[in-house]
Amino acid sequence: MQENQFQNVTTNNLPLPERVAEQISQLIITRNLKSGDKLPNEFELGSLLNVGRGSIREAVKILVARNILVIQRGKGTFIANNPGQVSDPLGFEFYKDQLKLAKDLLEVRMEIEPWVAQLAAERATDEDIANIKRICGEVEADILEKRDHLPNDNRFHIAIADCTHNDVVPKLIPVITYAVGLFGSLNGTKLLAATISGHRNIVDAIAAHDPAMARKTMAEHLEQNRKSIMEAVNTRTDKDESEK
Amino acid sequence: MQENQFQNVTTNNLPLPERVAEQISQLIITRNLKSGDKLPNEFELGSLLNVGRGSIREAVKILVARNILVIQRGKGTFIANNPGQVSDPLGFEFYKDQLKLAKDLLEVRMEIEPWVAQLAAERATDEDIANIKRICGEVEADILEKRDHLPNDNRFHIAIADCTHNDVVPKLIPVITYAVGLFGSLNGTKLLAATISGHRNIVDAIAAHDPAMARKTMAEHLEQNRKSIMEAVNTRTDKDESEK
Repeated sequence: MQENQFQNVTTNNLPLPERVAEQISQLIITRNLKSGDKLPNEFELGSLLNVGRGSIREAVKILVARNILVIQRGKGTFIANNPGQVSDPLGFEFYKDQLKLAKDLLEVRMEIEPWVAQLAAERATDEDIANIKRICGEVEADILEKRDHLPNDNRFHIAIADCTHNDVVPKLIPVITYAVGLFGSLNGTKLLAATISGHRNIVDAIAAHDPAMARKTMAEHLEQNRKSIMEAVNTRTDKDESEK
Repeated sequence: MQENQFQNVTTNNLPLPERVAEQISQLIITRNLKSGDKLPNEFELGSLLNVGRGSIREAVKILVARNILVIQRGKGTFIANNPGQVSDPLGFEFYKDQLKLAKDLLEVRMEIEPWVAQLAAERATDEDIANIKRICGEVEADILEKRDHLPNDNRFHIAIADCTHNDVVPKLIPVITYAVGLFGSLNGTKLLAATISGHRNIVDAIAAHDPAMARKTMAEHLEQNRKSIMEAVNTRTDKDESEK
């Protein structure tokens, strides 16, 4: 069963390096290669796939661009972490109307993340709970020591998604938490204090295995964010208008 | 405001072709180039970015691999349709346990798609409704004439997402409707008949601007799919067991 499930890919219309890239992807799957595993060398791949080393090299470049492979100079070519996942996979940075994008993303987050928190409260193990508590503490430390807390804030939301033990949800969260470039200064003292208490409420609800409370506290946290973003947007819009 | 919002990308640690690729992406955004627009030629890009044509060419290959650019032989290099969107952007094909992936994807779909149908019923214009009716008819024609209906079936679900007028939702739907390679034969007569009536019920609810009914009929449609997939999985699992 495992060997055949991906063979129905139709790649005949594609240029040769693309076809070879597809074949290398299939090889990674059928050989069950994992993140950090070494890819066979160019010579071996060339013999296996019956193409020249130039085509192998072009194919590898394509797979590097797609975060399926990583090259470590002098060491070889390896399977990437989270192969196939690129940053900004839906091309949000190319959206013309970044303000509408911000609003639409928030609408999606306010639907999905309370549900995720609810599932997290139902399914979190003791280890999961220890993990979100730890990351919650790291976000607080960032805020109190006036560092940029957004990287750890994102890790916090992904760690909650991990509590669901659904393999899709933790991949979806970074996509919808894409930070729109419009909002530079969401670091008001009021919002930062609200972030700390909002995160603590979510952690407490998940740790208490209280799904309804987890859903409610996550919704409140996002609503707080939404308000702050809309205030920032309105301030900017007023400023833009007055500059005309 | 528009010009500066993406300048804070830190790319200094990346290899030169990656940095040039990032700069070309920024150029596409700041020049407001749209799908189908022509990219400046290698010579012009080289002068603009102060790098050699070899680096430009490598950068263009990276951007082609990421579906940001497309090369039309003899014509030039153009901005792709839906720039930055790749197929399988979350790397689902590299998941080891495709059965768990199928179950997890369904869990996510059953949360998101009824909500999407509800929003669609609230917001659909007459034009939107005409569009989903047309595609619904195309799916039925495929089924009745025994063609593969899945491409139009996917278009149907995306067209419902378009009715929300949320720009994120129609991009998210193709990600979560990723077809796991495990299930070849979901084309039983019973399921196909259920697909036709399920789709019609959804269309009727959206056309009637009945959000509660749209949510309910979409949930029923997905539940029907879930049952069929689980039956197919169990049949396969039994078969695998008996082959051991």
